[in-house]
Amino acid sequence: MIRPIPPGTRDVLPDEMRELRAIQSALLGTFENAGFREVRTPTLEYADALEMADRRSADSAYRFFDERGEMLALRTDMTIPIARLVADRYRDLDPPHRLSYFANAYRAVTPQRGELREFGQAGIELIGVPGPEGTAEVVELLDRSLSAVGLDQAVIGLGEDGLWTALLQDSGAGPETIERSSELLVSHDLVGVERSLRESDELDETAIAQATRLIQLRGGIGILEEARSFGGTGFAEVLDRLTQNFEAISARSLNREVLLDLGMLREIGYYSGSTIEVYDDAVGDVIGGGGRYDDLMNRFGMDLPAAGFTLYIERIHKAQLERGRDV
Amino acid sequence: MIRPIPPGTRDVLPDEMRELRAIQSALLGTFENAGFREVRTPTLEYADALEMADRRSADSAYRFFDERGEMLALRTDMTIPIARLVADRYRDLDPPHRLSYFANAYRAVTPQRGELREFGQAGIELIGVPGPEGTAEVVELLDRSLSAVGLDQAVIGLGEDGLWTALLQDSGAGPETIERSSELLVSHDLVGVERSLRESDELDETAIAQATRLIQLRGGIGILEEARSFGGTGFAEVLDRLTQNFEAISARSLNREVLLDLGMLREIGYYSGSTIEVYDDAVGDVIGGGGRYDDLMNRFGMDLPAAGFTLYIERIHKAQLERGRDV
Repeated sequence: MIRPIPPGTRDVLPDEMRELRAIQSALLGTFENAGFREVRTPTLEYADALEMADRRSADSAYRFFDERGEMLALRTDMTIPIARLVADRYRDLDPPHRLSYFANAYRAVTPQRGELREFGQAGIELIGVPGPEGTAEVVELLDRSLSAVGLDQAVIGLGEDGLWTALLQDSGAGPETIERSSELLVSHDLVGVERSLRESDELDETAIAQATRLIQLRGGIGILEEARSFGGTGFAEVLDRLTQNFEAISARSLNREVLLDLGMLREIGYYSGSTIEVYDDAVGDVIGGGGRYDDLMNRFGMDLPAAGFTLYIERIHKAQLERGRDV
Repeated sequence: MIRPIPPGTRDVLPDEMRELRAIQSALLGTFENAGFREVRTPTLEYADALEMADRRSADSAYRFFDERGEMLALRTDMTIPIARLVADRYRDLDPPHRLSYFANAYRAVTPQRGELREFGQAGIELIGVPGPEGTAEVVELLDRSLSAVGLDQAVIGLGEDGLWTALLQDSGAGPETIERSSELLVSHDLVGVERSLRESDELDETAIAQATRLIQLRGGIGILEEARSFGGTGFAEVLDRLTQNFEAISARSLNREVLLDLGMLREIGYYSGSTIEVYDDAVGDVIGGGGRYDDLMNRFGMDLPAAGFTLYIERIHKAQLERGRDV
């Protein structure tokens, strides 16, 4: 008699709801204290507004025609709508703009491994402050936010978009090889990455060894030393950027160590420069992410550097529960 | 360059967002103090779950097929999803169930007069307490909730579903006349109502006079006296129910008077018994509504009486602003 709810969606009962509201309150309070003020955007956007920012996001959105024949889409994140909002409503205000959100987003996926089609996101956007200082401000607030929800053991990983591409280009790989191996790297298929490099026949053994080593390098400042011997001038330049970002972050007073992750490649298509991922051993998946997207605002007609992070509410909550059980 | 957002949706900037969060906090706190605990349901439901409860709601929903070929719908309110949730998750728990929500709902309308396609709702569901005591508990909490958001001047109107139908049946009107005049009454077209009764040729002048008078009767207990001379035994029975409900409400200690509204007919199709509307002169539209829906749970396989109310967040906020300007 009872019709179930669509897979990848959830009913939330009162005990859990109270915990989710506590997360909301802790995060929005932390954002506000740091000068980031909350905005809200429609759940429904014009599909072409999402496409303008990132075709991959638009492709994964629930889309449908409204009664006027316009194609609407359920937002897939809050970063793109906030970029649109800032370009629209903050045009005459001096940057930087510090905005936050706590909202649901939607992805049209066939749910596997408990993937959600509707999920909560809390995050901030820092628009108008270039890296490394902008990146450091974002990471500092991320660090405080994790502490505000009791996740002192959560780890922040810092990567640099372009590192992988630069190493392969310096090593003589063509665009197809770079694309294929990048897709495998996004899905953490390290064996597949190595195979795709060998099969391309474009890289010598040293280059393959460097590439497969690079994506395993994860740790403190020490790992940069080994990486400095890799690639050529293109790679060295991107590695320098990462080093500067890491130094700017290290100058901040954080509650946790930030780990360099040279193999980090994030899926969403609008990243440029620093990328961020948040892990908690208690949860078998990233619990948050972010980075710089200095070209995103430009797609909405406003040329401002930007960075931000998002925390995945359901995973934050799961991590809290797992951590609570440890006590 | 900037792609606007779909009509009937809104971007909310920080100053307003803060005010909306204050409304959320005040209402959820008031609900919680009265023993109503918050739940959340998916934004996406199976379209046929909505249809099972109310075809009219389902027809006004944004609907689309997911990647597995199932028809999904954006929820049009929270009452139907909570009825589904209770039938599913509270089956083994003793009633009554006292639940609350603060969430967005969606209607596929061509926006006119500032109608929203995405709008906020805050409300409660009292499942398992029959009227008049159940109705009185709901109205008392509604009264407190309005005070909690500073709307001491907002008015609660109490109607009774079935009053209009009973009077017309007692007067000899056929089903077509009842249906046509009811539709006109829902849209407050009182001139059209009278015309439709005359055109039917089924009612005599006395009956037409009673019907057109009934829907103008609005006020305190005194208006019942006039209405008692209307119709026959069917109408008298429904009017008795309304009287009992009003007396149960009057026994509660409220911050405001409750007005009887004998012409109230609410649009949503699952009401039975008491109906509630909330007005504030500062806003040219109802700012909330509710009532009893004793047959709704049954459509999800659980036979429990139920009642509740919903406040429309954007209109509550507008009323606050208008009232603020008066000071």
